[in-house]
Amino acid sequence: MIIDCHGHYTTAPKELQTYRDSQVAALKDPSQAPTTGPLKISDDQLRESVQPQLKFQKDRGTDVTIFSPRASAMAHHIGDAQTSLDWSRHCNDLIYRVCGLFPENFVGVCQLPQTPSDVLANCISELERCVNELGFIGCNLNPDPSGGRWTAPPLTDKSWYPFYERLVELDVPAMVHVSASCNPNFHATGAHYINADTTAFMQFLTADLFKDFPTLRMIIPHGGGAVPYHWGRYRGLAQDMKRPPLADLIRNNVFFDTCVYHQAGIDLLLKIIPADNVLFGSEMVGAVRGIDPETGSYYDDTKRYVDAAAISSDARAKIFEGTARKVYPRINRALSVGSKQ
Amino acid sequence: MIIDCHGHYTTAPKELQTYRDSQVAALKDPSQAPTTGPLKISDDQLRESVQPQLKFQKDRGTDVTIFSPRASAMAHHIGDAQTSLDWSRHCNDLIYRVCGLFPENFVGVCQLPQTPSDVLANCISELERCVNELGFIGCNLNPDPSGGRWTAPPLTDKSWYPFYERLVELDVPAMVHVSASCNPNFHATGAHYINADTTAFMQFLTADLFKDFPTLRMIIPHGGGAVPYHWGRYRGLAQDMKRPPLADLIRNNVFFDTCVYHQAGIDLLLKIIPADNVLFGSEMVGAVRGIDPETGSYYDDTKRYVDAAAISSDARAKIFEGTARKVYPRINRALSVGSKQ
Repeated sequence: MIIDCHGHYTTAPKELQTYRDSQVAALKDPSQAPTTGPLKISDDQLRESVQPQLKFQKDRGTDVTIFSPRASAMAHHIGDAQTSLDWSRHCNDLIYRVCGLFPENFVGVCQLPQTPSDVLANCISELERCVNELGFIGCNLNPDPSGGRWTAPPLTDKSWYPFYERLVELDVPAMVHVSASCNPNFHATGAHYINADTTAFMQFLTADLFKDFPTLRMIIPHGGGAVPYHWGRYRGLAQDMKRPPLADLIRNNVFFDTCVYHQAGIDLLLKIIPADNVLFGSEMVGAVRGIDPETGSYYDDTKRYVDAAAISSDARAKIFEGTARKVYPRINRALSVGSKQ
Repeated sequence: MIIDCHGHYTTAPKELQTYRDSQVAALKDPSQAPTTGPLKISDDQLRESVQPQLKFQKDRGTDVTIFSPRASAMAHHIGDAQTSLDWSRHCNDLIYRVCGLFPENFVGVCQLPQTPSDVLANCISELERCVNELGFIGCNLNPDPSGGRWTAPPLTDKSWYPFYERLVELDVPAMVHVSASCNPNFHATGAHYINADTTAFMQFLTADLFKDFPTLRMIIPHGGGAVPYHWGRYRGLAQDMKRPPLADLIRNNVFFDTCVYHQAGIDLLLKIIPADNVLFGSEMVGAVRGIDPETGSYYDDTKRYVDAAAISSDARAKIFEGTARKVYPRINRALSVGSKQ
């Protein structure tokens, strides 16, 4: 089985965006507020909307996608905690419905209702709802709910700890994933995403978060930002700062996906990071949608790069399946339920 | 000849920091203001202070370092335009004196007196002083004078254009280099530096800066941040956005140094980026000071990695010397003057 740990619902029916537009408009003009209650989107619309993902799964030979709401649309910097809660619940509910319609193809991961003034506003209750009631297996945690202003404390600050306690109790991991940038310096998918990955890793390197939470698991997406490319720099910084070796830092706690869109990048990633700490991911349908003229394949068809990498079959099995099952243990139950339906 | 394009004066005599401490203290208590006039540092002190650099040059087999004030100490976010101007002039004057004492070993690049409220405050006049009077061959340009708050406009914004006009007229390049971070999210050398490199590249990708300035040259240090590792992502983003191919974007305008501290990273860099766009650099004595137990050599002894890379002798010659002479054309005159002294 091939598990893609990183897929966002970027193809949701337009009714979702209509809701969001009304919600944002209502921040200035309350008469624009959307109606409450579930969105009027039919199962047929949902089925139709994920055909691109299903086709890519089939064409590329992958099986199941760990599926979460569109990352760039989380936009935690818009509105307040209630805005973010309403928006997150709608987005998560749609993921739940898609996973219910295609239980062998999608397993849910939730968006959190973060907000700049309260990085964990309603997050524990929404996490619990998604995991305990909707069968989700993890969450996306935004280290910068301000959207490029970076006003939140580092992820290693104790203000995040109550949330980590709940993650550990539920035995679900968090993917560290920012959203849109409202800072004109940072292109979202080209700079803000990658910077956040790099930033989070360095935060982890300099603090004792995983001493405090030995079973907390964080996935750093987009191949770990700049980290594997600068692995020598990070090893050296850790050494100069008398921090633990990176192998010890990441072993049980820090994981990278394979959302790196060329062979040389994947080759570096898999040379540097042990397969025990790498999860196959594609970000499909996501950041880059075109076909690479150099290969004739989609840039984000990352399975091709992993297939072509000079690694053992054991390592490849871990990257495609084993590491994901270890990091997201609730996937085992979700898939066995899915396969029986 | 081997030219190291990236060295900071991190070993200056303590009198420089004493001046700075007084200057910063005076922001709250004017009675602490340092005395005006040149710093009382003797030539012997300067000679002594750069012995580490000279020893590393000799031990590693490099010849000349393009030398600039300590990057993390620029700290443009402290004080105002006058603070930054006074500090920059002292720092640049010390570089000038070191270059005068060791004209075959060091060539100067200047710090700019940027400040958050005016990203180009006094920058043109200080650049002109350094290039025309002190014989400097380039500058370090900080895309984020706020020190991790990222409040300045992107480097492609027209507010920077008057400075670029002067760079082009003087035929000197800028290395894009941030300074210390006052944002607790960003470790300076482990996150802020690398993020700034990645951010600048994406800014260049999305705008027409080099159409407006066809001869403007920007060096992105630290191996280009995350860029070469994510080259497929950037090629794909450029394609999706109908921007020029990356090969065209960088050809005459964007250059990367080799400050990547392990073999696999350098191998990737040199596989992806043409030698015409790579300058040898070490950041010595700088971000990482230890010895890598895996190799027995200093992490920042980047010459070893370039020596070991599978590239042609022609490519290696460009990386060690040719590209630097092309990007910093004033180095030719500086070195010929130096060799005659």
